[in-house]
Amino acid sequence: MNSREEVDDFVKNGHTQYLPHLSIDPVIFGYHDQQLRILLLKWIGHNGWGLPGGFIRRSEPLSQAANRVLQERTGLDDVFLQQFHTFGDSPYRLQAQTARELTEKTGHLVEHDSWLFDRTLSISYFALVDYSKVNVTTDFFTEDYQWCDAGAIPPLLFDQNEVVDKALATLRRQLYHEPIGYNLLPEKFTLPEIHALYETILGKKLDQRNFVKKLVTLGLIKKLDEQRSIGPHRSPYLYQFEKDTYEAALEQGIVQAY
Amino acid sequence: MNSREEVDDFVKNGHTQYLPHLSIDPVIFGYHDQQLRILLLKWIGHNGWGLPGGFIRRSEPLSQAANRVLQERTGLDDVFLQQFHTFGDSPYRLQAQTARELTEKTGHLVEHDSWLFDRTLSISYFALVDYSKVNVTTDFFTEDYQWCDAGAIPPLLFDQNEVVDKALATLRRQLYHEPIGYNLLPEKFTLPEIHALYETILGKKLDQRNFVKKLVTLGLIKKLDEQRSIGPHRSPYLYQFEKDTYEAALEQGIVQAY
Repeated sequence: MNSREEVDDFVKNGHTQYLPHLSIDPVIFGYHDQQLRILLLKWIGHNGWGLPGGFIRRSEPLSQAANRVLQERTGLDDVFLQQFHTFGDSPYRLQAQTARELTEKTGHLVEHDSWLFDRTLSISYFALVDYSKVNVTTDFFTEDYQWCDAGAIPPLLFDQNEVVDKALATLRRQLYHEPIGYNLLPEKFTLPEIHALYETILGKKLDQRNFVKKLVTLGLIKKLDEQRSIGPHRSPYLYQFEKDTYEAALEQGIVQAY
Repeated sequence: MNSREEVDDFVKNGHTQYLPHLSIDPVIFGYHDQQLRILLLKWIGHNGWGLPGGFIRRSEPLSQAANRVLQERTGLDDVFLQQFHTFGDSPYRLQAQTARELTEKTGHLVEHDSWLFDRTLSISYFALVDYSKVNVTTDFFTEDYQWCDAGAIPPLLFDQNEVVDKALATLRRQLYHEPIGYNLLPEKFTLPEIHALYETILGKKLDQRNFVKKLVTLGLIKKLDEQRSIGPHRSPYLYQFEKDTYEAALEQGIVQAY
């Protein structure tokens, strides 16, 4: 949505095309080279950053809408995308300032009582992508973007800091029972590669020997009879995710905390 | 809501008081005496059973709405209630039959294009209660209720069988890292009591010796220096949940599947 006419029509009549009161707000984690980052957009009408987001079409299945929003913002298809919570406790409304800036930019009067300014609940998802492969798209409503270090998130719009915290907690909790990392590592990876991924996502050091022993004992990864040659006398063994084990563990519904 | 006038007003003007397109549908698990059951209501206009449900008031925080819906249906406050998923993939609409039956019962014409018949997404929660302590309330929209065995759920409205399946899977997955059972057992319980609770919820036999060892090793329960006298020569030791350990495990975000 980039022309003034499109934006004007969206503000005035968007509720005939989209469900009001509901937005989809994905927390898009980007991992690359031992960095964990989060995609933030600079929305017009706010002095600050927020999550990417979008609306659900009137007849569109929810999961399809979530994938579409992700695809529109990042160009990515077929990535790990998981719903984790619907937020609706804080007031979550666009401010009058947004109406003023939209009026300026479109040259049409945007009323603060448009459907767009109603109370909105946020159905939140998280995705995990390799940020070096992503082309972020901004539009009329978003002036800029950044891949922000997950450890240094600035104050975000509405209750979105809480959204990011919960996304990160969920991601970390699932790390040992879902194949979350499978699209961030090569299909066959070395132990240092998966060790770095887990340390980065958990935000702390893990003893490599114990970590590996645990993953292997749990049956989450398996050693292949194959080595990668990375230099003279350096040919580490390759490993692979055991997707079946993850799925069986989930089916069984038995997980434990320690 | 029980009088014809109230119902008529709700059908015609409910969207001025409640958010359209959204319902809250709690899966209420009831445990008692080694039985796991689910509360089902018989909604008018359908030949079958469905989950209890309600709407969110326009200015009501979501979690408050969820607690209110639970309280209105069961009379219970202060129970374990957790959001687990928002469903929006299947068409989820009341049928014309509901409009016809409402018209008959209220004596007012109920139009099938009322807000009540719009597409609705379901924000789903699950609760865990002692069903022997619950007074279920039916109203104008619900003709009957039952506590249905969790292993024998009939075909439900819309996609609610999927909702129940996911609730049960979530409950089972969390059993080892949230103090889910704390309001179903006495504050101080015996090992056979917690063993029966876990077996019932998981729907399978657990070797008692291994089960107890695991809970104690994980630090989820602790043995008290106290016994319960249940007969001559029968004084089993009492145990208590270690709520702090559960919370630390969740904070740490490290769980494992096996």
